[in-house]
Amino acid sequence: MSAYSQIADHFGRLSALSNAIGILQWDSDAMMPKGAAASRADSMALLRVMAHEMAVDPRIGDWLGAAEGEGDLGAWERANLREIRRSWTIQTALPADLVAATSRAISACEMAWRSARENADFPALLPLMQEVLRLQREAGVAKGEKLGLSVYDALLNDYEPGGSAVQIDALFDDLAAFLPGFTQEALAAQARRPEPAAPQGPFAVEAQRQLGLKVMAALGYDFDRGRLDISAHPFCGGADNDVRITTRYDEADFSKALMGVIHETGHALYEQGRPAAYMNQPVGSARGMSVHESQSLIMEMQACRSRAFFDFAAPLMAEAFGGQGAGEQGLGWEAQSLWRRATRVEPGFIRVDADEVTYPSHVILRYRLEKAMIAGDLPLKELPLAWNAGMRDLLGIVPPNDRLGCLQDIHWPSGGWGYFPTYTLGAMTAAQLFDAACRAEPDVLPGIGRGDFTPLVFWLRTHVHSQGSLYSTDELLTRATGRPLDAGVFKAHLARRYLDQA
Amino acid sequence: MSAYSQIADHFGRLSALSNAIGILQWDSDAMMPKGAAASRADSMALLRVMAHEMAVDPRIGDWLGAAEGEGDLGAWERANLREIRRSWTIQTALPADLVAATSRAISACEMAWRSARENADFPALLPLMQEVLRLQREAGVAKGEKLGLSVYDALLNDYEPGGSAVQIDALFDDLAAFLPGFTQEALAAQARRPEPAAPQGPFAVEAQRQLGLKVMAALGYDFDRGRLDISAHPFCGGADNDVRITTRYDEADFSKALMGVIHETGHALYEQGRPAAYMNQPVGSARGMSVHESQSLIMEMQACRSRAFFDFAAPLMAEAFGGQGAGEQGLGWEAQSLWRRATRVEPGFIRVDADEVTYPSHVILRYRLEKAMIAGDLPLKELPLAWNAGMRDLLGIVPPNDRLGCLQDIHWPSGGWGYFPTYTLGAMTAAQLFDAACRAEPDVLPGIGRGDFTPLVFWLRTHVHSQGSLYSTDELLTRATGRPLDAGVFKAHLARRYLDQA
Repeated sequence: MSAYSQIADHFGRLSALSNAIGILQWDSDAMMPKGAAASRADSMALLRVMAHEMAVDPRIGDWLGAAEGEGDLGAWERANLREIRRSWTIQTALPADLVAATSRAISACEMAWRSARENADFPALLPLMQEVLRLQREAGVAKGEKLGLSVYDALLNDYEPGGSAVQIDALFDDLAAFLPGFTQEALAAQARRPEPAAPQGPFAVEAQRQLGLKVMAALGYDFDRGRLDISAHPFCGGADNDVRITTRYDEADFSKALMGVIHETGHALYEQGRPAAYMNQPVGSARGMSVHESQSLIMEMQACRSRAFFDFAAPLMAEAFGGQGAGEQGLGWEAQSLWRRATRVEPGFIRVDADEVTYPSHVILRYRLEKAMIAGDLPLKELPLAWNAGMRDLLGIVPPNDRLGCLQDIHWPSGGWGYFPTYTLGAMTAAQLFDAACRAEPDVLPGIGRGDFTPLVFWLRTHVHSQGSLYSTDELLTRATGRPLDAGVFKAHLARRYLDQA
Repeated sequence: MSAYSQIADHFGRLSALSNAIGILQWDSDAMMPKGAAASRADSMALLRVMAHEMAVDPRIGDWLGAAEGEGDLGAWERANLREIRRSWTIQTALPADLVAATSRAISACEMAWRSARENADFPALLPLMQEVLRLQREAGVAKGEKLGLSVYDALLNDYEPGGSAVQIDALFDDLAAFLPGFTQEALAAQARRPEPAAPQGPFAVEAQRQLGLKVMAALGYDFDRGRLDISAHPFCGGADNDVRITTRYDEADFSKALMGVIHETGHALYEQGRPAAYMNQPVGSARGMSVHESQSLIMEMQACRSRAFFDFAAPLMAEAFGGQGAGEQGLGWEAQSLWRRATRVEPGFIRVDADEVTYPSHVILRYRLEKAMIAGDLPLKELPLAWNAGMRDLLGIVPPNDRLGCLQDIHWPSGGWGYFPTYTLGAMTAAQLFDAACRAEPDVLPGIGRGDFTPLVFWLRTHVHSQGSLYSTDELLTRATGRPLDAGVFKAHLARRYLDQA
C-alpha cells in the first residue's frame, strides 16, 4: 500500500469520526432534550479527543514525507498532501497542556459571558476573558512559529488559510473610507421614498416552514442529503452527504426565518457540491470561511435581495400567508414593496441584526480591536471605551451599555479570535463572484426572476463548490473572476442597489 | 488510583462512546435523509470497531484481577466487576476473523432476506442463512467453552444472562400444553359476546400524536430525558438520560400507534429509572431482555389492556378525535367497547400482529425450531415444513406461503439466534411482577383507572428499574415476587381476562 493510500485511509477514518461529531452536534442544538446535556458532553469530549489523537497521529509525519516523494500523484492528490501538511503542522504546533488550558478557559469564559452580557457587566467578564486572550496569544505564537506567520495571522489562518492582516487592512481601509459617507447617502435616498406598506402578522410557523422549503428547493438544495429543522441559533451543519440547516421562526416577521433559510441554504449548497471523489479528504473540504460566507451571502444578499427575486418570491409569499394582513387594496404583498422592505438600511448596535450596508462597519470595528488586543496595543480593560469610540466613527451611534456593545458576540469569549474579518471578506467575495457569474451567464438574473436558480448554481458548482480546497482562496477567486479580491465590485453593488433605486 | 477506579473510568468512556452510537442509530432510523446512508455506515462501522476495541482492551483482564482482590468494595462495585468479567469473557471468546466473517454474512443475508420475503422464496435465502447459522453455531461453541454452557445457552446468554434451555423448556412446555385448548375456549367465549362497535377513521396523525404524548406523561415518562418521534419500525433507543422512543401512525386505526407508544414507554421507563450513580457502568444496565420486555408488556398488556385503563383512556380517546366516526348514539367510544376491541383474540400468521393469547405460540414455535437448528437436529432446508407443522399444532392454522411463514422475521437472517424466547419470558415475567405489584400496592389498579400510574411505577422503580444488574434475573424476580419465574400467574391472568369477562 502506498504512503498516499495509507494517509488517505487515515483521513477517511478521521472524516467518518468528524461526521459522527457533526451529527451529534446538530442533535445537541436541534433535537436533544435538556436533561441529556451532561451525558452528551461526555460523549462529545471523548469523540473530540479521539479525533484530535487521529489528527496528530505521529505516523502522519512519516506518511507525508514518503507520499510527497511518490511520483505518480495527480494534482488533487498533491493538493491533498499540501492541505494535510498544513493542518498537521497547525495541530501539532500546540502543546497538549495549552490545548487543555484553552478548553477549560473557554468553558469558564463562555458561561460567565452569558450572565455578563445579560447584566451588561464587562468587569465581571474581564479576568476570564483576559485568560482566554492570553492563551489565544500563546497559541498564535506557537502556530506562527511553525507557519512563519505573525501572531494574528496565525490565528486568522485557522479560518482563512492564506489570509493576512496586510491584505485585510488594505481591503478594510478602503471600505472604512467609503462606508460612513455612503451610509448617509443611502439613508438620504431612502428617506426620499415613501415608506413601503407592511403585511401584518402573526404568520403561522407551518406556513413559514412550507415557504422556506419551497425556496430551498428552488435554490437547488438536495433534500435527499439534508434536512431543515429548528434551533435557537440557525446554522448549517451535519456531515458529508447529510448537510442539515436550521432556522427559527418569528410569528411577527416571516422574512427573518426566510432570509435565514436562504443564507444557510447557500452554505449547504457549497457543502453538498463539494467534489464527491474527495468528499472525505482534506482537499475536498470547503476552501475557508470567507469563501463559505460568500456562498451564503451570494444567495441571501446578491440573489435573494435582488429586485428580480421578488418577481418570483412575492406571489409565493402572498400565497403562503393567504395575503393576510395587507393594507388597503392588498398593499404590502407586491414585489416592489417586499423588495423595498428587504433592502432597508438602518444603523443599529447589534451586528447580527445589521443590514447589508452597515454590517461591514460592525466587522471592521471588531477586526481592528481584536488585532490591537492580540498585539497588546489595546489593554482588554479599555475595550468598552474603544468599542464605543469605534461605533461613533464608523456608524455614528454609541451603544448605551456594553450588552448592546462589546458584550454582544460570543466569538471572543469562546476563543474565536481571528474569525470576524471572514464575514466581510465573504460579503466582498460574494459580490465579486456574483458579478462574474452574471457576466458569464446572462440568464443568471432573469432566471432568478423566474425562480430558476440553475444558471447561477451551475456556475457556482463549476467555479467554487466542485473545487474544494484544490486552490488557495486567491487562486480560486482569480480563476473564477479574473483577479484576486478587491472592494470595487462590492462598493459598486451597494451603490447600484441603494442609491440608483428607481 | 485503584484498579477498580481504573476499570470504572474505562467503562465510563465506553458508555460515552455507546451513547454516541445510540443517538446516531436513532438518527439513522428516525431522522437521516436517505442519501446519507453510505457515509453514515462508515461512521457507525468506525465507532463500533472503536467500541469493540475498548471492550476487549487487554488491560481489562489485569484490572479485573487486581480489582477483585481489593477489599473495600461495596455490593454494587462487586456486582459491577462480576458483570464486567462476564461481558469481557464473552467478547474475548470470539476470534477477530469470526467476528468479521459474521458481520459480512449477516449483511449479505439481511439484504437477501428482504427480497426473499417479498417473493416468498425460501430457497433463494437458504445458502446465505446456512452460512449465518454455521457462524452462529461457531460463535456459540467458542462462547460456550469459555462460559461452560451449551451452544444454544451460550447464544441465549447474549440476551438473557443466566438463562438456560432447560429452564425455558419447562416453562414453554407448560404453556404449550395449555395454550391450544385455551385459545379455543377464549375464541368460544368471545363468539358468545356481541361484536363491539368500532369508531371509523381516518384518525389524524397529529391528534394521535397528542394522545400518545398525554398517555406517556400519565405513565411517568420524563420528557426532559427523551423524545417521541416517527420511524418505520418502532423502537426505544438513544442514550443515558436521553431515552427516545418512536412509533408509526396508521390513519385507519389509532390503537396501533397508541399501544405501540405505551409498549415503548414501558421500555423507556426502565431505561430512565436505572440507578443514576451507576448509569454509565455495566452494573447499572438493564438486567436482560426478558426483564426489559416485561417492562414494556406490564404497560402494554397488564396495565393498559386492563378494563380499568379504559375508564381513564376512553374519554381521552373520544376527545382526541372529537368522537368522530361513532355509530348510532355515539357507540364505539365507551370504555367497555374500546376495551373489548383491545382484547380481541384472533389466531393469525404474523407474530408482530398477534394478540396476547396467541403470541406465545409464535414464540414457542421459533424457540423450538432454532434450538433444533443450532443442535443440528433440523436441517435448515427443512425449516418451511417444520414451521408449517408447528403452526398447525400450536395455532391450528397453516400459512399459505413462506412470506407469511418462516420468512417473516429478520432475527435469524440478522444473527439474532437465541433472542426469540425472551418475548414470552417477558410476558410471563410481566404477569408475575404486575400481580406482585397489585398485591403490595392495592391502589395500582384503581390508580390506573384514574390515570394515576404512580403506585405502579413507584413499585417498579423500587423493585426493578433502580436495581440495574445488581442481581441475576432469578434473584431479582425472587426478591420482587417471592419466587422465580413460573407460568402460573400468566395463565391465571389470561383465564381472568379472556374467560371470566362479564
